[in-house]
Amino acid sequence: MSASAAVPASVAARLQARSGAFTGPTANLAPGHVQANLAILPRELANDFLLFCQRNPKPCPLVGVSEAGNPRLPSIGEDLDIRSDVPRYRVWRDGEVVEECTDVSHVWRDDLVSFAIGCSFSFEEALLAAGIDIRHISAGSNVPMFRTSIPTVPAGRFSGPLVVSMRPMKAADAIRAIQITSRFPSVHGAPVHLGDPAQIGIRDVMAPDYGDAVEIRAGEIPVFWACGVTPQSVVAAARPSFCITHAPGHMLVTDLKNADLALF
Amino acid sequence: MSASAAVPASVAARLQARSGAFTGPTANLAPGHVQANLAILPRELANDFLLFCQRNPKPCPLVGVSEAGNPRLPSIGEDLDIRSDVPRYRVWRDGEVVEECTDVSHVWRDDLVSFAIGCSFSFEEALLAAGIDIRHISAGSNVPMFRTSIPTVPAGRFSGPLVVSMRPMKAADAIRAIQITSRFPSVHGAPVHLGDPAQIGIRDVMAPDYGDAVEIRAGEIPVFWACGVTPQSVVAAARPSFCITHAPGHMLVTDLKNADLALF
Repeated sequence: MSASAAVPASVAARLQARSGAFTGPTANLAPGHVQANLAILPRELANDFLLFCQRNPKPCPLVGVSEAGNPRLPSIGEDLDIRSDVPRYRVWRDGEVVEECTDVSHVWRDDLVSFAIGCSFSFEEALLAAGIDIRHISAGSNVPMFRTSIPTVPAGRFSGPLVVSMRPMKAADAIRAIQITSRFPSVHGAPVHLGDPAQIGIRDVMAPDYGDAVEIRAGEIPVFWACGVTPQSVVAAARPSFCITHAPGHMLVTDLKNADLALF
Repeated sequence: MSASAAVPASVAARLQARSGAFTGPTANLAPGHVQANLAILPRELANDFLLFCQRNPKPCPLVGVSEAGNPRLPSIGEDLDIRSDVPRYRVWRDGEVVEECTDVSHVWRDDLVSFAIGCSFSFEEALLAAGIDIRHISAGSNVPMFRTSIPTVPAGRFSGPLVVSMRPMKAADAIRAIQITSRFPSVHGAPVHLGDPAQIGIRDVMAPDYGDAVEIRAGEIPVFWACGVTPQSVVAAARPSFCITHAPGHMLVTDLKNADLALF
C-alpha cells in the first residue's frame, strides 16, 4: 500500500478501503492503531443493542457509536465514512447474509446506527511486545473461538452465549498476559477463564466453533478471553430484518492508538 | 489487647510485644498494617544479603533495612526497636536455631543489620476484601509452602531454591487474584506459577515442605506465589555464624499500611 507520508497509517488504510484498492483482511495493517468490529443496526434495535453492550462490556467494549443515519464516527476517525471504509462488509436480512461487498452505500438508510466494538488485535499487540508467543499468529491461522455455557446478560431482543477466543500459554506467560490485558478493558480486558475448557461448556478445545484449531503444547494452559464475535452471534440470533457487519477479519481501522487504551 | 485509643494498632501491637505481654502469632493483629519477615545479619553478610534481595525481589521484597548496629527502623515504625518489638525470635548459630525468645537484647551486637521483608498477609487482606476464599484462612491452618525447582539468583554466600506458597482457587478467582496481587509488588506481587505443580518441581501438592496441606476442590487450580520463607531458607543454608529471625508466624508489625503499598 502506498500513501502520502503525511497521512497516518490508519487514514491511509481507510482511504485504500474506501477507493476499493484494498479489500483484504486487516491483520497487521496500520500497526499501533485500534481496529474494531462493526455492527450497523436500524434505530429500532439500536437502543437495545446499546444496552446489551453496556451490560456485557467484556465481549462488547464499545469504542464508538454513531448518530442514527450519520455515517461519520469522528471520535475514532476524523474523516471516517462507515459506508466505505471497511474493506469488506456483510449485509444481513432476516438473520441471513445476503451480500458480501466492499461498500454499503447502495443499502445505506437514514435510520442506521453504527457500533464500533474493540477487538483483540489491540491486546495481542501488547502481548507480542512482551515477548509472549501467540499461537495462532505464529501458526499463521485464525484465533480459535468457542461458544460457551456462560450466558450474556440479555437486553431486549439480544441474548445468547458468550463467545471466547483461546490462546494457549505457559503458566508464567498466562500470568503476564492477565496483567497485560487487564490494562486494556476497552478491548476485552482480562481473560474470563483459564484451564479446564469443560468448566465453561467447551467440549473439545481442538474443535473451535469459529476460526482454526491451534496446538496446545505440553505444559501449556488454554486461556480464554471474551470475544467480539459474541455481539455478532447475538445479532445474528436476533434475526434483525436488516443489519450490516464487517466480514470476519476485515475490521474497521480507527485513528485511536492501542497504547492510548491502556489504563496505566 | 488493650491500648490507649490514641495509639495506632500497629504501635500498640509492638508495645505489647516489647513489654512481653504479647508473645503469640501476629495473624489478624493490627489489621491494615504491613507485617514483615525479619532477618538480622552481621555486617559481613549484610551486603551480600542486600544484593540477594535486590536480585530476587519477588521472594525478598525489602520494606526496610537498618543501619549496622542501629536497632531502629524509623521508616517503618517511628519508635520501633527491633530487639524487642517482635513477639518471638529465633537466634541462630552456625545455621542452627540455638534459642527461641521474646527479646534479643541479650545477644544484640553493634554489627547487626536488620532486614524487614514484606509478607503475604498484605495481599491476603486485599484478596479477602475482594471476596476471594483463601483456603488456609477459612480452614484455620497455615499456608502450605513448597521448595521448588526454580533457583534464586545467587549473591555471595546466599543461594538456593525459591520457596512458594499455594492457594487453590477457581479460575475466575485466580484471574482476579493475579490482578489484585499485581498491585502489590512490594509484598511478593503476582503469582509465579499456576496449574501443574510438577512444572516447578513440586511432586506432591498435598505434602508441603512448610505449613499445612489444604484441600484443593474439584475445578480449582493451585496458584503459587513467591514466599518470604525463601530468604529464611537461603539464610539457613548459608549457615552464618550468627543471625536472628522472627519465629514463624510471629511477624514484625509495622506502621506502614497495606493500602499504601498498592501500585494503583
